[in-house]
Amino acid sequence: MSETMKGLKRTKYCGQFTAEDIGKEVTVAGWVQKTRDLGNLVFIDLRDRSGIVQLAFDDGTDREVFEKAAGARAEFVLMAKGEVRRRESVNKEIPTGEVEVYVSDLRVLAKSQTPPFEITDQTNVKEELRLKYRYLDLRRGEMQQSIILRHKIAKVARDYFDENGFLEIETPVLIKSTPEGARDYLVPSRVHPGSFYALPQSPQLYKQLLMLSGYDRYMQIARCFRDEDLRADRQPEFTQIDLEMSFVEEEDVMSVNEGFIVRVFKEVLGVDVSAPFLRMPYEEAMNRFGSDKPDTRFGLELTDLSDLLENCEFKVFKGALETGSVRAINVKGAAHQLSRKEIDKLTDFVKTYRAKGLAFTRITEEAESSSYEKFLSQEEKEAIRQRMDAQVGDVILVVADPSNQVVYDSLGALRVELAGRLGLIKKGTYNFLWVTQFPLFEYSEEEERFVAKHHPFTCPALEDLDRIESDPAGCHARAYDMVLNGCEVGGGSIRINTPDLQERMFRALGLDEATANERFGFLLEAFKYGAPPHGGMAYGLDRLVMLMLEKDSIRDVIAFPKVQNASELMSQCPAQVDEKSLKDLSIKIDIQE
Amino acid sequence: MSETMKGLKRTKYCGQFTAEDIGKEVTVAGWVQKTRDLGNLVFIDLRDRSGIVQLAFDDGTDREVFEKAAGARAEFVLMAKGEVRRRESVNKEIPTGEVEVYVSDLRVLAKSQTPPFEITDQTNVKEELRLKYRYLDLRRGEMQQSIILRHKIAKVARDYFDENGFLEIETPVLIKSTPEGARDYLVPSRVHPGSFYALPQSPQLYKQLLMLSGYDRYMQIARCFRDEDLRADRQPEFTQIDLEMSFVEEEDVMSVNEGFIVRVFKEVLGVDVSAPFLRMPYEEAMNRFGSDKPDTRFGLELTDLSDLLENCEFKVFKGALETGSVRAINVKGAAHQLSRKEIDKLTDFVKTYRAKGLAFTRITEEAESSSYEKFLSQEEKEAIRQRMDAQVGDVILVVADPSNQVVYDSLGALRVELAGRLGLIKKGTYNFLWVTQFPLFEYSEEEERFVAKHHPFTCPALEDLDRIESDPAGCHARAYDMVLNGCEVGGGSIRINTPDLQERMFRALGLDEATANERFGFLLEAFKYGAPPHGGMAYGLDRLVMLMLEKDSIRDVIAFPKVQNASELMSQCPAQVDEKSLKDLSIKIDIQE
Repeated sequence: MSETMKGLKRTKYCGQFTAEDIGKEVTVAGWVQKTRDLGNLVFIDLRDRSGIVQLAFDDGTDREVFEKAAGARAEFVLMAKGEVRRRESVNKEIPTGEVEVYVSDLRVLAKSQTPPFEITDQTNVKEELRLKYRYLDLRRGEMQQSIILRHKIAKVARDYFDENGFLEIETPVLIKSTPEGARDYLVPSRVHPGSFYALPQSPQLYKQLLMLSGYDRYMQIARCFRDEDLRADRQPEFTQIDLEMSFVEEEDVMSVNEGFIVRVFKEVLGVDVSAPFLRMPYEEAMNRFGSDKPDTRFGLELTDLSDLLENCEFKVFKGALETGSVRAINVKGAAHQLSRKEIDKLTDFVKTYRAKGLAFTRITEEAESSSYEKFLSQEEKEAIRQRMDAQVGDVILVVADPSNQVVYDSLGALRVELAGRLGLIKKGTYNFLWVTQFPLFEYSEEEERFVAKHHPFTCPALEDLDRIESDPAGCHARAYDMVLNGCEVGGGSIRINTPDLQERMFRALGLDEATANERFGFLLEAFKYGAPPHGGMAYGLDRLVMLMLEKDSIRDVIAFPKVQNASELMSQCPAQVDEKSLKDLSIKIDIQE
Repeated sequence: MSETMKGLKRTKYCGQFTAEDIGKEVTVAGWVQKTRDLGNLVFIDLRDRSGIVQLAFDDGTDREVFEKAAGARAEFVLMAKGEVRRRESVNKEIPTGEVEVYVSDLRVLAKSQTPPFEITDQTNVKEELRLKYRYLDLRRGEMQQSIILRHKIAKVARDYFDENGFLEIETPVLIKSTPEGARDYLVPSRVHPGSFYALPQSPQLYKQLLMLSGYDRYMQIARCFRDEDLRADRQPEFTQIDLEMSFVEEEDVMSVNEGFIVRVFKEVLGVDVSAPFLRMPYEEAMNRFGSDKPDTRFGLELTDLSDLLENCEFKVFKGALETGSVRAINVKGAAHQLSRKEIDKLTDFVKTYRAKGLAFTRITEEAESSSYEKFLSQEEKEAIRQRMDAQVGDVILVVADPSNQVVYDSLGALRVELAGRLGLIKKGTYNFLWVTQFPLFEYSEEEERFVAKHHPFTCPALEDLDRIESDPAGCHARAYDMVLNGCEVGGGSIRINTPDLQERMFRALGLDEATANERFGFLLEAFKYGAPPHGGMAYGLDRLVMLMLEKDSIRDVIAFPKVQNASELMSQCPAQVDEKSLKDLSIKIDIQE
């Protein structure tokens, strides 16, 4: 049987004791990090979320207390009362290293089996095991720091937006299914057999209605849900810092959000971020970086060679230029790091982005080699070398493809890959920018129609209002994405606020009137009663925290994450439920073979 | 087509203009509350969340601007630029009443149809219509005040608990179904056909695991879900202020929560609540108030008459006393307010609580009448009158029943009903107390077994640890409920923290080992690795806000509530979904006739 803490009350956390406490009678509590049993002396490192303090026991210690101390094992939960005294051998590694508690009363509040892995700050235990025993993994100092900083980031967000007049307003989690984009999670209704709620992919419609209701500035740290096939950095449920403002234009939303970023980086990390951030039009981002979320911590920018190759007879380039382009990166001074073998690996890398190959020119002091120059005229070769500023030591990497998207995707990914391999990224650098002037639509080959690049509520650029139907591909959106180190941390837009424009937008997206009304009728109706101009923003909180803490996985900043197949390894959910529950919900399981 | 706000930027909110702004050029934005068109003069009351400011137009106004103003209707969205000037006739009703904006530029940002009801602070519009057009209802000043104060209450909660070392940690919303108590909402998994997630009824298990992980102090404002048949003050989804602490006993949890209440009442309402609150054992609460959430803002306490009637031959009392009791309330000085007809109504009232009747003695200066005294001996009658301190002007109301629960329920409800009818409750009074020493179990007639009075993780009183199996009905729990004005606003307990005790508890609740392991195996396993003593608390935020703002319904403090049949009238959810979605989820609809 475990002992109770009756009559004892913790003085303060383990990590808070200093020389100033010497001579005081105190009570501490925590987990045994390790014990040293020297026969007539026992020392125990006691751990809580603040750190470690040493407990000491010796000849003078009450026998019963001494025996308990000697019997303590790793992860036992102890409460100890005693006097703080100066340690014989000071431990400079820990803040409490000058002192120890000489224990007079010791309670074993709970015993522990030997844990499946040791509780240490850093670990190389397999993630699967860590997640199965998440409650033990969460004891590790590294995880505790992440969870504590996540709390601080959310707290600063709420403080900042509150100070700026934003109201946190809770929107429903059981809502109507209005699929557009990802799949909804559905929840069968017991009271309405055959009907379903959906879990929100975001509070989008509700926050727009709140603007229509005159709340003027809304924010919410909101749980969102997407039933997608999971990529490495996605979770079926994730958290958004979600906000919306009335009577604003793009710059108003961007500047209030820059203020937030400056504040949260300063307050949580002590890092100065300078605002305003760079604004970069989508087209420029694609042309220079091959990505709408460019990582600007390093160069390796893309160069378009297409115009130099107009008369080129080389089949690969010629074929590409009919509908696509030929673009290149000069990896300056990297010829010795990028051997032919390395370039072959990079070729395999770009192929995963659907590029057919990676052409190159490699110039060392000893030799020049090129996979494509021999197919070009002298003039073309020189024009390219000149535009690429090709020097001894450089490697020119070229992708040609009939799809511009493939050229962008492969070179965009290649420059990030190269930066990693060549060590061009300095830790602790936080490069923010806004990408603006996005296309309003993008064509979905799969659905054979235009879909919204952001979402169907995004307002078209004012000058494109008349061209939604006639030239969808040429329309721009009043949208903006916040990019940090090559990741989209947030995005938003000015929204449509009139029923006629919203209806036109639904039509342009191929929603017939009946379907639009069935799904969004309440929104279209609402817009008839005076919706102010409004716009907003949403951050992926998990990703923002991950980037701030320079973690590799969002699972390291979520207390109880799910794995790639959307299950949680600790509680083993999802799981089967009993027949009666399903009957109550008027559904049955119907597995297609 | 609506106009844009291009080139204009709001100076500040409508309600913020004062005489100090006179002479300044400003820009305001908002909704038309009303217009007065005097031919050559037009006045518009422009409204936003802060209040109202008057816009003025006259002969000197640009014609186009004047025409737009004259054409504006209620709920149009306007942006206006102009000079602040002193009003000719000051309006003392509103803070901005000394000034008006003399408009030089006016934009009609959005028009409005005539709304289905007028946007006024107070309203007597049917709730159904208000909820259908919730976005308009939310424009009303009364609703806006509620939503704004709700934001403040949540903000103070986060500030207070943060300052006291609590970390807000997000727990999952897609979890494993562990039904105990209410029904879970279920979410079919697409990736794992035939398996389901559940939505959490509370973060209970996760917050306990966080204590086991050493986070020491956790809080979260968390959405919770219960698929119950709705009572007037319940919602399928509701919000909890949820917290948990390690190395604590009951008093530690209670005192940190008293600190929160004192703070939130002071900061949000300016009301001083004094702490510590009264602690009242469950048994005392039942005996004095017939309720485990006693409203102590008025008297009308219960008196037990059972011992005076031991030898009574009156069938009703005699029958009651075999297994139940006879108890009474003296409604002092109310004889003239409680006519026989009134008492008949009260009899009908107590019958809704399963009482078979309401016996009475009514004493006025003119006459005495009693429904039961004639069946008693003179001695019994006098003993009762003496114990009840019966005086001229009093009405004694008596319930006798073989079930003590029926006696408590009916008299407990009766005293609240009487207090309302007799006007005994003073607005603006906030009476807090803790109810303690709850029974650990209660017997469920329906399930023919003992069920947990709070939940299966509640720790039994230390002195009852050996009697869980032998005397379940006699065991007490280390639980405490916070009661405000007759409502439970929160509750909590010290939890079980050892696997052996938790297993015994599951057994006592009739869970066989296999089922316990299937549902709670991960918790039992976790407890093997050193769980600290811990305890916590959860508040119903919706109810707390409702009580603080003295609203009659929690629907008035939730932006987008659902109605009694769990549907939302605005978006009309839940709703049918397409076949393909169900197929993806490997379920089909199976409605039993």
